[in-house]
Amino acid sequence: MSTSSIEPIARMAAQLARLPGIGRKSAQRLAYHIAGMPEDEVHALAAAIWQGRKAVHFCSICGNYAQEDTCLICQDEKRKNGQICVVRDPRDVAAMERMRDYTGRYHVLGGTLSPMSGIGPDQIRIRELLSRLSSEEVEEVILATNPDIEGEATAAYIARLIKPMGIRVTRIAHGVPVGSDLEYADEITLSKAMEGRRDM
Amino acid sequence: MSTSSIEPIARMAAQLARLPGIGRKSAQRLAYHIAGMPEDEVHALAAAIWQGRKAVHFCSICGNYAQEDTCLICQDEKRKNGQICVVRDPRDVAAMERMRDYTGRYHVLGGTLSPMSGIGPDQIRIRELLSRLSSEEVEEVILATNPDIEGEATAAYIARLIKPMGIRVTRIAHGVPVGSDLEYADEITLSKAMEGRRDM
Repeated sequence: MSTSSIEPIARMAAQLARLPGIGRKSAQRLAYHIAGMPEDEVHALAAAIWQGRKAVHFCSICGNYAQEDTCLICQDEKRKNGQICVVRDPRDVAAMERMRDYTGRYHVLGGTLSPMSGIGPDQIRIRELLSRLSSEEVEEVILATNPDIEGEATAAYIARLIKPMGIRVTRIAHGVPVGSDLEYADEITLSKAMEGRRDM
Repeated sequence: MSTSSIEPIARMAAQLARLPGIGRKSAQRLAYHIAGMPEDEVHALAAAIWQGRKAVHFCSICGNYAQEDTCLICQDEKRKNGQICVVRDPRDVAAMERMRDYTGRYHVLGGTLSPMSGIGPDQIRIRELLSRLSSEEVEEVILATNPDIEGEATAAYIARLIKPMGIRVTRIAHGVPVGSDLEYADEITLSKAMEGRRDM
């Protein structure tokens, strides 16, 4: 450390750099900025981070973030039972909810199968899903894990477990994103889009 | 707010979105991530932010960040007096120090002249610079404000004030960045680079 590094700022930068998508350089830029912010604003920021984390737990039913024992979606009696949308993490629930079309329930896995990182079926909430399927009356399980290798493998694994139970298992469609340019679509997406074509 | 928004996470995201370079979307992504982090890690993050801010003041001599009344650079007796490098903010001091070539002193303006934003000479630390020039023995003032419109205007303004005092005033060189590609340099930079060419 040169004589010019200010230790509390360096410590702040080191913490910020642990967050996803924030590199060493932008962490330093942020730390320098925060050090010059009015004290009350920095207090509001630090408090929102710490109190936000303290206030949030995992829903005991679906695994989504919740402030109480169960999340607002599981508590909502107006939502349709019988349909469970399976996603990787709470952020995916938020993304699905922004769509406003889906009125069923969720199940958050908390990860995807990844043998390389030592994440097997016991490390994600698959057992909890199966137990819900035997206690709730479920007609359809919608597998909405990411359309990447791990997400596909996880969806395939779960489908294999659930199909024998006589429950309908669906997978969200792959295809070209709305508003995008065909030219920029990769071949696999394009071939999935062709495969899934429908009559107009 | 839909039934799925978790209020403490939304509050965290709102605070994070106030930081420079963090948009609404990445603030939400960060907040969702932080909500799922182990409590001790979140505590370390929030504490580093708040304690970092609390520990940092402005150096009473140069305006850089400092933990005591004066900063480590102003305290350093091995550094050369007589040379003052004028920069916009503490982050620029850190950038200059990474270069390891400069051994003189600094003066941090805390901003640049910007009539559009109501920042005039009294809003930045120009008076403090002039007072240092009359009390310290200074041979050279190096103007290292940014090479943008406001930085140039600020440098020109300060140069006009200092030159009559018989002190040498220099401006850092403009030119093509080392390791860059001529093809991508804008015309003004290129013309400055030609203007400032030297014999080899």
